[in-house]
Amino acid sequence: MKPKRLRSHLLGPSWKHFAAKRRVARLATSTSRGKPYLVPICFAFDGRSFFSVVDEKPKKRSPLRLRRVRNIQANPQVALLLDEYYEDWRKLRFVLVQGKATILLSGVEHDRAVRLLRRKYGQYRKMRIEGRPVILVKPTRVTVWGR
Amino acid sequence: MKPKRLRSHLLGPSWKHFAAKRRVARLATSTSRGKPYLVPICFAFDGRSFFSVVDEKPKKRSPLRLRRVRNIQANPQVALLLDEYYEDWRKLRFVLVQGKATILLSGVEHDRAVRLLRRKYGQYRKMRIEGRPVILVKPTRVTVWGR
Repeated sequence: MKPKRLRSHLLGPSWKHFAAKRRVARLATSTSRGKPYLVPICFAFDGRSFFSVVDEKPKKRSPLRLRRVRNIQANPQVALLLDEYYEDWRKLRFVLVQGKATILLSGVEHDRAVRLLRRKYGQYRKMRIEGRPVILVKPTRVTVWGR
Repeated sequence: MKPKRLRSHLLGPSWKHFAAKRRVARLATSTSRGKPYLVPICFAFDGRSFFSVVDEKPKKRSPLRLRRVRNIQANPQVALLLDEYYEDWRKLRFVLVQGKATILLSGVEHDRAVRLLRRKYGQYRKMRIEGRPVILVKPTRVTVWGR
Protein backbone atom coordinates (compact mmCIF):
# COMPACT_ATOMS: atom_id res chain seq x y z
CA MET A 1 0.00 0.00 0.00
CA LYS A 2 1.41 3.34 -0.97
CA PRO A 3 0.45 6.71 0.53
CA LYS A 4 -1.47 8.83 -1.93
CA ARG A 5 -1.04 12.58 -2.12
CA LEU A 6 -4.06 14.62 -3.06
CA ARG A 7 -5.48 18.08 -2.81
CA SER A 8 -8.16 18.25 -0.13
CA HIS A 9 -10.94 19.22 -2.50
CA LEU A 10 -9.97 16.15 -4.52
CA LEU A 11 -10.46 13.77 -1.59
CA GLY A 12 -13.02 11.23 -2.72
CA PRO A 13 -16.38 11.09 -0.95
CA SER A 14 -15.43 8.13 1.24
CA TRP A 15 -12.27 9.85 2.49
CA LYS A 16 -14.18 13.08 3.09
CA HIS A 17 -16.72 11.13 5.07
CA PHE A 18 -13.96 9.41 7.05
CA ALA A 19 -12.30 12.76 7.82
CA ALA A 20 -15.50 14.54 8.78
CA LYS A 21 -16.69 11.74 11.06
CA ARG A 22 -13.62 11.52 13.32
CA ARG A 23 -14.49 12.89 16.75
CA VAL A 24 -10.92 13.80 17.58
CA ALA A 25 -7.86 14.74 15.54
CA ARG A 26 -4.28 15.49 16.49
CA LEU A 27 -2.76 18.85 15.62
CA ALA A 28 0.99 19.28 15.37
CA THR A 29 2.47 22.75 15.43
CA SER A 30 6.12 23.68 15.60
CA THR A 31 8.29 26.54 16.73
CA SER A 32 10.10 28.18 13.85
CA ARG A 33 13.20 26.32 15.01
CA GLY A 34 11.55 22.94 14.54
CA LYS A 35 10.45 21.97 18.05
CA PRO A 36 7.11 20.20 17.53
CA TYR A 37 4.10 20.37 19.83
CA LEU A 38 1.06 18.14 19.66
CA VAL A 39 -2.47 18.18 21.07
CA PRO A 40 -5.72 16.31 20.55
CA ILE A 41 -8.42 18.59 19.16
CA CYS A 42 -12.09 18.54 18.34
CA PHE A 43 -12.67 19.90 14.86
CA ALA A 44 -15.11 20.48 12.04
CA PHE A 45 -14.37 19.87 8.35
CA ASP A 46 -16.35 21.61 5.62
CA GLY A 47 -14.88 19.50 2.82
CA ARG A 48 -11.98 21.89 2.26
CA SER A 49 -10.76 23.40 5.52
CA PHE A 50 -10.58 22.34 9.15
CA PHE A 51 -11.75 24.41 12.11
CA SER A 52 -10.98 24.01 15.78
CA VAL A 53 -11.83 26.30 18.68
CA VAL A 54 -9.52 27.01 21.56
CA ASP A 55 -12.26 26.09 24.01
CA GLU A 56 -12.23 26.09 27.77
CA LYS A 57 -10.99 22.52 28.10
CA PRO A 58 -7.37 23.39 28.83
CA LYS A 59 -8.13 26.85 30.33
CA LYS A 60 -6.44 28.53 33.31
CA ARG A 61 -4.23 30.54 31.01
CA SER A 62 -5.35 33.03 28.42
CA PRO A 63 -6.15 31.17 25.17
CA LEU A 64 -3.73 33.32 23.19
CA ARG A 65 -0.89 32.27 25.45
CA LEU A 66 -1.36 28.58 24.71
CA ARG A 67 1.61 26.93 23.04
CA ARG A 68 -0.38 25.91 19.93
CA VAL A 69 -1.50 29.50 19.36
CA ARG A 70 1.93 30.98 19.95
CA ASN A 71 3.49 28.43 17.61
CA ILE A 72 0.98 29.21 14.85
CA GLN A 73 1.53 32.93 15.23
CA ALA A 74 5.28 32.45 14.83
CA ASN A 75 5.05 29.64 12.26
CA PRO A 76 1.77 28.83 10.47
CA GLN A 77 2.93 25.41 9.19
CA VAL A 78 0.89 22.64 10.83
CA ALA A 79 0.00 18.99 10.40
CA LEU A 80 -3.34 17.45 11.27
CA LEU A 81 -3.89 13.72 11.53
CA LEU A 82 -7.23 11.94 11.22
CA ASP A 83 -6.84 8.29 11.92
CA GLU A 84 -8.48 5.29 13.48
CA TYR A 85 -6.82 2.36 15.17
CA TYR A 86 -7.85 -1.25 14.70
CA GLU A 87 -6.20 -4.38 16.01
CA ASP A 88 -6.61 -5.77 12.51
CA TRP A 89 -3.83 -3.75 10.94
CA ARG A 90 -5.18 -4.36 7.46
CA LYS A 91 -7.99 -1.95 8.36
CA LEU A 92 -5.72 0.92 9.45
CA ARG A 93 -6.21 4.16 7.61
CA PHE A 94 -5.40 7.79 8.04
CA VAL A 95 -5.65 11.18 6.44
CA LEU A 96 -2.68 13.47 7.00
CA VAL A 97 -3.24 17.13 6.30
CA GLN A 98 -0.31 19.48 5.98
CA GLY A 99 -1.21 23.09 5.69
CA LYS A 100 -1.23 26.63 6.93
CA ALA A 101 -3.05 27.69 10.07
CA THR A 102 -4.58 31.04 10.93
CA ILE A 103 -6.02 32.28 14.22
CA LEU A 104 -9.47 33.84 13.81
CA LEU A 105 -10.72 36.01 16.65
CA SER A 106 -13.98 37.17 15.04
CA GLY A 107 -15.67 37.64 11.69
CA VAL A 108 -17.75 35.67 9.24
CA GLU A 109 -15.40 32.68 9.06
CA HIS A 110 -15.10 32.58 12.85
CA ASP A 111 -18.88 32.56 13.25
CA ARG A 112 -19.26 29.87 10.65
CA ALA A 113 -16.68 27.72 12.45
CA VAL A 114 -18.66 28.08 15.69
CA ARG A 115 -21.82 26.95 13.88
CA LEU A 116 -20.10 23.96 12.27
CA LEU A 117 -18.55 22.92 15.57
CA ARG A 118 -21.88 23.19 17.38
CA ARG A 119 -23.58 21.14 14.69
CA LYS A 120 -21.04 18.36 15.14
CA TYR A 121 -20.55 18.47 18.92
CA GLY A 122 -23.52 18.73 21.26
CA GLN A 123 -20.99 19.59 23.96
CA TYR A 124 -20.30 22.96 22.31
CA ARG A 125 -23.95 23.98 22.30
CA LYS A 126 -23.69 24.59 26.03
CA MET A 127 -20.26 26.23 25.96
CA ARG A 128 -19.59 29.90 25.33
CA ILE A 129 -17.22 29.48 22.42
CA GLU A 130 -18.40 32.55 20.46
CA GLY A 131 -15.62 34.69 21.85
CA ARG A 132 -12.85 32.10 21.71
CA PRO A 133 -10.08 31.96 19.11
CA VAL A 134 -10.62 29.59 16.20
CA ILE A 135 -7.79 27.78 14.45
CA LEU A 136 -8.42 27.51 10.71
CA VAL A 137 -6.30 24.99 8.84
CA LYS A 138 -6.13 25.30 5.06
CA PRO A 139 -4.59 22.17 3.58
CA THR A 140 -1.73 22.53 1.14
CA ARG A 141 -1.15 18.79 0.88
CA VAL A 142 -3.26 15.84 1.92
CA THR A 143 -1.93 12.30 2.16
CA VAL A 144 -4.24 9.33 2.57
CA TRP A 145 -3.09 5.90 3.62
CA GLY A 146 -5.08 2.68 3.76
CA ARG A 147 -8.17 1.52 1.94
CA MET B 1 -7.57 21.88 35.24
CA LYS B 2 -4.00 22.84 34.60
CA PRO B 3 -1.45 20.85 32.59
CA LYS B 4 1.28 19.43 34.81
CA ARG B 5 4.87 19.22 33.68
CA LEU B 6 6.89 16.31 34.94
CA ARG B 7 9.96 14.29 34.14
CA SER B 8 8.96 10.94 32.68
CA HIS B 9 10.50 8.87 35.46
CA LEU B 10 8.40 10.97 37.84
CA LEU B 11 5.14 10.05 36.14
CA GLY B 12 2.97 8.48 38.81
CA PRO B 13 1.99 4.80 38.45
CA SER B 14 -1.48 5.57 37.09
CA TRP B 15 -0.08 7.83 34.34
CA LYS B 16 2.59 5.26 33.50
CA HIS B 17 -0.11 2.65 33.22
CA PHE B 18 -2.21 4.93 31.02
CA ALA B 19 0.77 5.62 28.74
CA ALA B 20 1.87 2.00 28.48
CA LYS B 21 -1.63 0.74 27.72
CA ARG B 22 -2.41 2.93 24.71
CA ARG B 23 -2.38 0.81 21.55
CA VAL B 24 -1.58 3.75 19.30
CA ALA B 25 0.23 7.04 19.76
CA ARG B 26 0.84 9.95 17.43
CA LEU B 27 4.39 11.01 16.64
CA ALA B 28 5.16 14.52 15.43
CA THR B 29 8.49 15.25 13.81
CA SER B 30 9.55 18.43 12.08
CA THR B 31 11.99 19.58 9.46
CA SER B 32 14.65 21.85 10.90
CA ARG B 33 12.72 24.72 9.34
CA GLY B 34 9.61 23.96 11.35
CA LYS B 35 7.40 22.04 8.94
CA PRO B 36 5.69 19.42 11.09
CA TYR B 37 4.85 15.86 10.05
CA LEU B 38 2.60 13.50 11.95
CA VAL B 39 1.90 9.76 11.92
CA PRO B 40 0.10 7.21 14.09
CA ILE B 41 2.54 4.70 15.57
CA CYS B 42 2.51 1.54 17.60
CA PHE B 43 4.95 1.80 20.46
CA ALA B 44 6.31 0.28 23.64
CA PHE B 45 7.08 2.21 26.83
CA ASP B 46 9.50 0.87 29.42
CA GLY B 47 8.63 3.49 32.03
CA ARG B 48 11.26 5.94 30.78
CA SER B 49 11.61 5.80 27.01
CA PHE B 50 9.38 5.05 24.06
CA PHE B 51 10.20 2.68 21.21
CA SER B 52 8.61 2.34 17.82
CA VAL B 53 9.65 0.25 14.85
CA VAL B 54 9.48 1.39 11.26
CA ASP B 55 7.58 -1.74 10.34
CA GLU B 56 6.25 -2.87 6.99
CA LYS B 57 2.89 -1.17 7.36
CA PRO B 58 3.69 1.86 5.19
CA LYS B 59 6.37 0.08 3.08
CA LYS B 60 7.00 0.43 -0.67
CA ARG B 61 9.83 2.81 -0.02
CA SER B 62 13.01 2.06 1.90
CA PRO B 63 12.35 2.66 5.63
CA LEU B 64 15.21 5.13 5.89
CA ARG B 65 13.64 7.28 3.21
CA LEU B 66 10.43 7.76 5.16
CA ARG B 67 9.67 11.33 6.11
CA ARG B 68 9.66 10.62 9.85
CA VAL B 69 13.14 9.09 9.66
CA ARG B 70 14.57 11.84 7.48
CA ASN B 71 13.11 14.48 9.79
CA ILE B 72 14.62 12.83 12.86
CA GLN B 73 18.01 12.54 11.20
CA ALA B 74 17.97 16.25 10.40
CA ASN B 75 16.22 17.35 13.61
CA PRO B 76 15.85 14.99 16.59
CA GLN B 77 13.18 17.09 18.35
CA VAL B 78 9.88 15.19 18.46
CA ALA B 79 6.55 15.18 20.26
CA LEU B 80 4.58 12.06 21.12
CA LEU B 81 0.97 12.15 22.22
CA LEU B 82 -0.82 9.47 24.21
CA ASP B 83 -4.46 10.30 24.57
CA GLU B 84 -7.91 8.84 24.68
CA TYR B 85 -11.13 10.42 23.49
CA TYR B 86 -14.42 10.26 25.37
CA GLU B 87 -17.69 11.98 24.59
CA ASP B 88 -17.78 12.92 28.27
CA TRP B 89 -15.14 15.63 28.06
CA ARG B 90 -14.58 15.54 31.81
CA LYS B 91 -12.84 12.18 31.24
CA LEU B 92 -10.41 13.45 28.60
CA ARG B 93 -6.75 12.93 29.42
CA PHE B 94 -3.46 12.91 27.65
CA VAL B 95 0.25 12.55 28.12
CA LEU B 96 2.39 14.72 25.89
CA VAL B 97 6.03 13.73 25.59
CA GLN B 98 8.53 16.14 24.13
CA GLY B 99 11.95 14.71 23.61
CA LYS B 100 14.82 13.66 21.43
CA ALA B 101 14.58 10.81 18.97
CA THR B 102 17.31 8.51 17.72
CA ILE B 103 17.21 5.93 14.94
CA LEU B 104 18.58 2.53 16.02
CA LEU B 105 19.53 0.10 13.29
CA SER B 106 20.93 -2.66 15.51
CA GLY B 107 22.44 -3.31 18.92
CA VAL B 108 21.29 -4.12 22.42
CA GLU B 109 18.72 -1.33 22.67
CA HIS B 110 17.33 -2.19 19.24
CA ASP B 111 16.90 -5.85 20.21
CA ARG B 112 15.28 -4.90 23.50
CA ALA B 113 12.82 -2.65 21.63
CA VAL B 114 11.88 -5.55 19.34
CA ARG B 115 11.24 -7.75 22.39
CA LEU B 116 9.13 -5.09 24.12
CA LEU B 117 7.10 -4.47 20.97
CA ARG B 118 6.47 -8.18 20.46
CA ARG B 119 5.39 -8.57 24.06
CA LYS B 120 2.82 -5.80 23.62
CA TYR B 121 1.64 -6.53 20.06
CA GLY B 122 0.84 -10.07 18.95
CA GLN B 123 0.89 -8.69 15.42
CA TYR B 124 4.66 -8.15 15.61
CA ARG B 125 5.37 -11.75 16.58
CA LYS B 126 4.65 -12.78 13.02
CA MET B 127 6.44 -9.84 11.36
CA ARG B 128 10.13 -9.72 10.58
CA ILE B 129 10.93 -6.53 12.44
CA GLU B 130 14.40 -7.59 13.67
CA GLY B 131 16.12 -5.82 10.82
CA ARG B 132 13.95 -2.73 10.75
CA PRO B 133 14.91 0.68 12.13
CA VAL B 134 13.68 1.51 15.62
CA ILE B 135 12.80 5.03 16.72
CA LEU B 136 13.82 5.63 20.32
CA VAL B 137 12.26 8.66 22.02
CA LYS B 138 13.88 9.90 25.21
CA PRO B 139 11.58 12.38 26.94
CA THR B 140 12.98 15.71 28.00
CA ARG B 141 9.61 17.04 29.16
CA VAL B 142 6.34 15.29 29.89
CA THR B 143 3.04 17.12 30.28
CA VAL B 144 -0.03 15.39 31.63
CA TRP B 145 -3.52 16.77 31.33
CA GLY B 146 -6.72 15.46 32.89
CA ARG B 147 -7.38 13.36 35.95
